Amino acid sequence: MNLNPVKGMRDYMPEEMSLRRSIIEKIRSWFEKYGFQEVMTPAVERLEVLQGKYGEEEKLMWKFQDLGGRWVALKYDQTVPLARIVSKYRPRFPFRRYTIDRSWRYENPQKGRLREFVQADADIVGPEEGMPDAEILALASDVMKDLGFKGFRIRINDRRLVDRVLDEIGIERKEDAMISLDKLEKIGEEGVVDEMEKRGIDRAKAEEFLKSGKMAGEFDEYSRLMEIKSLAEEMGAERIEFDFSLVRGLAYYTGMVLEIQASPDIGSVGGGGRYDNMIGMFGFPAKAVGMSFGVERLFELLKDEPKRQGSILCSFASDSYTARVLRKLRGRENLSVITGKKVDKMLKYADAKNFRYAYIIGPDEEEKREVRKKDLETGEEIVERLVL
Amino acid sequence: MNLNPVKGMRDYMPEEMSLRRSIIEKIRSWFEKYGFQEVMTPAVERLEVLQGKYGEEEKLMWKFQDLGGRWVALKYDQTVPLARIVSKYRPRFPFRRYTIDRSWRYENPQKGRLREFVQADADIVGPEEGMPDAEILALASDVMKDLGFKGFRIRINDRRLVDRVLDEIGIERKEDAMISLDKLEKIGEEGVVDEMEKRGIDRAKAEEFLKSGKMAGEFDEYSRLMEIKSLAEEMGAERIEFDFSLVRGLAYYTGMVLEIQASPDIGSVGGGGRYDNMIGMFGFPAKAVGMSFGVERLFELLKDEPKRQGSILCSFASDSYTARVLRKLRGRENLSVITGKKVDKMLKYADAKNFRYAYIIGPDEEEKREVRKKDLETGEEIVERLVL
Repeated sequence: MNLNPVKGMRDYMPEEMSLRRSIIEKIRSWFEKYGFQEVMTPAVERLEVLQGKYGEEEKLMWKFQDLGGRWVALKYDQTVPLARIVSKYRPRFPFRRYTIDRSWRYENPQKGRLREFVQADADIVGPEEGMPDAEILALASDVMKDLGFKGFRIRINDRRLVDRVLDEIGIERKEDAMISLDKLEKIGEEGVVDEMEKRGIDRAKAEEFLKSGKMAGEFDEYSRLMEIKSLAEEMGAERIEFDFSLVRGLAYYTGMVLEIQASPDIGSVGGGGRYDNMIGMFGFPAKAVGMSFGVERLFELLKDEPKRQGSILCSFASDSYTARVLRKLRGRENLSVITGKKVDKMLKYADAKNFRYAYIIGPDEEEKREVRKKDLETGEEIVERLVL
Repeated sequence: MNLNPVKGMRDYMPEEMSLRRSIIEKIRSWFEKYGFQEVMTPAVERLEVLQGKYGEEEKLMWKFQDLGGRWVALKYDQTVPLARIVSKYRPRFPFRRYTIDRSWRYENPQKGRLREFVQADADIVGPEEGMPDAEILALASDVMKDLGFKGFRIRINDRRLVDRVLDEIGIERKEDAMISLDKLEKIGEEGVVDEMEKRGIDRAKAEEFLKSGKMAGEFDEYSRLMEIKSLAEEMGAERIEFDFSLVRGLAYYTGMVLEIQASPDIGSVGGGGRYDNMIGMFGFPAKAVGMSFGVERLFELLKDEPKRQGSILCSFASDSYTARVLRKLRGRENLSVITGKKVDKMLKYADAKNFRYAYIIGPDEEEKREVRKKDLETGEEIVERLVL
């Protein structure tokens, strides 16, 4: 039988899962430091809740009929469920919620694009722009620093600013211009101008648009964005850069947009922005700003040689002595255990499993109420007396 | 539009999610203390992997066709995926893995029985019975103590012991006898005897079987189980009780079985046992012993008045001062924030959200570089000087 996980999905065995868990827990701890509170929604939603929310991408939704014949779907992101619970439970605003959970998309599987993946979302629902937008930037920066990315950058822009510049130049097909601009990193300046022309925008205006980064600086929308940036910096944020070419695909952003890169030449590990019209889709309007990390992307970038860690007890002493030693040592640290007759074989196991320390007990140690502790990295050994 | 979650599933808003999270993290921390390592498998499995593994209950499996027409199913438990990965990755034994994840069953929804629920499983794959079985009991006991259940009990029995007693009495329909015995708590002694008779077992023998708890004590299987119990106690386990009527429904147990109750009169919150023939279903045989907690059951029992917790900054000072105070205070604790003009309104929010402490800053505090800290439970207030 085929023992692989379902196409486009992954098993995480202990060596990988421990990194994945540490990424998730670091993000969670920053979300909580910023006062976000966890919310969990089911994996499955009624199809009508998700349908019509994702435009063309909707074809990637894992929809199916449940055993009672009702149409349902695996959740496609964490944002539409957020909109649903805001309308259903009407929490007091500001509502600062985070969710770290799986989403499912029927993508064509490729490196870094899976059919099941984990998103870590933090959103503030309710308040006007300003402080909350700055907090989102500071949060993104704190997480990236804590994960150890020295060269990360957070690019920011404002949708309304692009809008203003397009007005100024006299380009009416704004949507087309933004879609083209979004491809700048992929297809270059020349490519963007070509694409805009193909979409019916005057070539001279397209060229002017591409050089309008400086012009952008003259508008109020720019000053407001810079205020948010400097507030974020007062909160401790680093490496935030204005980038007029950043628009981000999702049509629902209405103000600031941000994109988080692990280093200038690596693709996005997360992003977000302000979306003031989206939460209301289920009847209860509210402004909102938020961001989302892709846990798989971070995992791929942080994967490294596994380090020796943790401790294991290797015992060829009596079961009873082993039990009491376990009890004693587990009072102070996490401890695995293997019992057997041959200490060499057990140490080989400890080594293969990448433990850092092996505690060893046999009949001699049992008689003396001792335990030998071996550092499997340095080979050093010490003997400890136990009070059991 | 209907904004409820899918039938039989639940949303967890912050007030509930924080308890749920603390239950999960307590269990996780004990799993790790015992040296179990986390493994994660996808939500979706190929149907052939799950099919034929759950007997009659298979009709509760959420199966469906993916967008490519392949039959898949949401995972029904964490055990069959464990068997799959053991055969696929062939980890070194003992393989001590834990998984805390959702499962899905198309149950008829009722109190405490959901269509989406979280199981916390810890299993040791590989070794012979003895120490590992004792560890499972000690682990169950440590978790229950840590969760604060004073009157919990862990009932244990051994499948082979029931077998021996049935042999001794001369009952051949063993399966029927065990299925009947399993219902003892529900239908009483008389009911069990009736049921056994209905299933073709001689009534006198059925009655003898029910009084055979004492007889059980004469067999080797009983002594072995008591050895495991006393090893577990040397590891610190408490409240383990032998119960000859415990058989547990799942047909795959081959030795010790255990069931965890929060108190003598409350249903099971978890259970497990030794299953030496099951892991091999995908071609790579291995002995195993393990246990599983039902997170929803624990949640229902621990639900209580929410306590005031956490801190929030209520600011009517400048954004810039607010940003710097946030940075300072978040260096030492988790901190939410609300800004506004009216301090009363903000304190009302802090109160409604059940925060314990409110830090308050306005123009006065800003000028003096201070912050007022109010205990929302006692009403006490202190002023702190900040070095920003």
